Amino acid sequence: LLNSSPDVGQLRTQIAKRDRQALARLLTWIEAGDPQADAAELQLEEGCTPEAYVVGITGAPGAGKSTLVNALVSTLRNRGSSMGVIAVDPSSPYTGGAMLGDRVRMVEHLTDEHVFIRSMANRGQLGGLAEAVPRAVRAMQSFGFDWILVETVGVGQVEVDIAKAADSIIVVVPPGSGDDIQASKSGILEVADLFVVNKADCVGAEDMKRAIIAALKMNPNYEIGWSAPVVLAVASTGDVADVIESLDRHRSHASDSGELVQRRRRRRIAEWRSDVIRQILQRTNSDLDSPDLDSLRDQVAASAVSPAAAARAFLDGEPGRLY
Amino acid sequence: LLNSSPDVGQLRTQIAKRDRQALARLLTWIEAGDPQADAAELQLEEGCTPEAYVVGITGAPGAGKSTLVNALVSTLRNRGSSMGVIAVDPSSPYTGGAMLGDRVRMVEHLTDEHVFIRSMANRGQLGGLAEAVPRAVRAMQSFGFDWILVETVGVGQVEVDIAKAADSIIVVVPPGSGDDIQASKSGILEVADLFVVNKADCVGAEDMKRAIIAALKMNPNYEIGWSAPVVLAVASTGDVADVIESLDRHRSHASDSGELVQRRRRRRIAEWRSDVIRQILQRTNSDLDSPDLDSLRDQVAASAVSPAAAARAFLDGEPGRLY
Repeated sequence: LLNSSPDVGQLRTQIAKRDRQALARLLTWIEAGDPQADAAELQLEEGCTPEAYVVGITGAPGAGKSTLVNALVSTLRNRGSSMGVIAVDPSSPYTGGAMLGDRVRMVEHLTDEHVFIRSMANRGQLGGLAEAVPRAVRAMQSFGFDWILVETVGVGQVEVDIAKAADSIIVVVPPGSGDDIQASKSGILEVADLFVVNKADCVGAEDMKRAIIAALKMNPNYEIGWSAPVVLAVASTGDVADVIESLDRHRSHASDSGELVQRRRRRRIAEWRSDVIRQILQRTNSDLDSPDLDSLRDQVAASAVSPAAAARAFLDGEPGRLY
Repeated sequence: LLNSSPDVGQLRTQIAKRDRQALARLLTWIEAGDPQADAAELQLEEGCTPEAYVVGITGAPGAGKSTLVNALVSTLRNRGSSMGVIAVDPSSPYTGGAMLGDRVRMVEHLTDEHVFIRSMANRGQLGGLAEAVPRAVRAMQSFGFDWILVETVGVGQVEVDIAKAADSIIVVVPPGSGDDIQASKSGILEVADLFVVNKADCVGAEDMKRAIIAALKMNPNYEIGWSAPVVLAVASTGDVADVIESLDRHRSHASDSGELVQRRRRRRIAEWRSDVIRQILQRTNSDLDSPDLDSLRDQVAASAVSPAAAARAFLDGEPGRLY
């Protein structure tokens, strides 16, 4: 049924031709929770393109994440890589172009055909960003990018969950005492593969670095396997060579140790589950709205049937039994 | 199947006999998302008891909500009413007795057979408190209480959602400038039926009252229908006669205007829907864990099948088609 939509049918061909508008349309469908996205995703064949390397960049507002992302994009482009960038702002009521207006530094990349930049806000009806972002990553993937950078604002649970879906996770912090890093309960310390103390030309950068290392050392597993390095940077100068060097090191480590394969396996399973659950919720909500249930709904409203009994009847597929 | 559990079978009889341990057990099942709760809820016949009047009490930490609830319990008890009290603390890792230890003032009511006090924390696997609380209210309902008081800590979206499931909503605020009330985006101003400025013997109570009224007047519908009164109180003295008087007035208004009937109709429909969705999610998660899907899961993990295609196969009930 859904596959019969001409829009959906064209999409695969268009994306294979690197049609940016087709990718933009698919991302809009994903963001809006449009069922056309599900049909389109089935059209994107797996294995056509090598898997992009996904980097999550997160940190509190004001840490300079956008500046860092911009510098990473420039540096990776100079190495000849192509990339997709997803900027996530859960609190923004805007999407796409509206938000990019603020990202003055990103403007230089907007006309580069090897860079695709997309902002995502929380517009989906169900589930929200934590599930839309991995789908957007996979959609960008089908475009054959070498890298995909996902920038999230904040260090709360949602942002940590989004960042966890990356191959390498960079946590950006501004100079300071480091008290808030240690007090954070969202697990940001545990998920970071690499810390960047940005604005390192300001007072407090070394203090912050020391505080992060001290906090990391409280983990009994510190220095077993990969220990997240803490890199000082001044992203606004554009010189992020040390960050890239650490990122490359983490990538090699993850690849050699088998950790990368494991992360990607877990990620695919999680995507499958969340895909199933999202579609089941969509279907159930639409079934619950059906006019066929008007009578049952009235009985529930009027206390003639308990909510629990009406739920049972619905689940048993025999709502008629009760009225 | 579930009905065959002897525990579930006994529950209805025990609750009809006002067995407090049976009610406590049902609340524990609800809190833990135990499927036995669903079976038990079907046993609790509707209409056996007159509907309790449900009061939601919410407000930021430090506003003195517990003191107010305690004073309301004492005053309503003196009028001869029985009541259930649910104290919700989403952030607390504890439940039941553990949290009650902190509620020193509540201790006087613990041995009163006409008062049943229960703390709830966020222990459920799925959905969490916003759906467990209405179920707990309904379970307490079956005990035949005159009133049910639901205390939530905080003025965020979850707390507002929980409070919305009440017949009357009291928002408790401490003295102050009122800036935070006006800045609140969670809709607390819109849902409040009654404001209590507690600790009114401290500086700033009149300022807060004025700020709340000014904020309320920015709503173009102010003074159409019910206008939430702002009552000054010193709950620690136990004198909450003014609060009770305003509460009684709101109850009469809601009852006479038909608003109470409408709220309860909406609440029952919402409970039905959330009951269906919770059980469908439980079932789906358990289906996704099934060993029957081991092979499909391996294919997804190994990139042989895309998450979207595997989701499609699962939803079509033919996961075998893909492997």
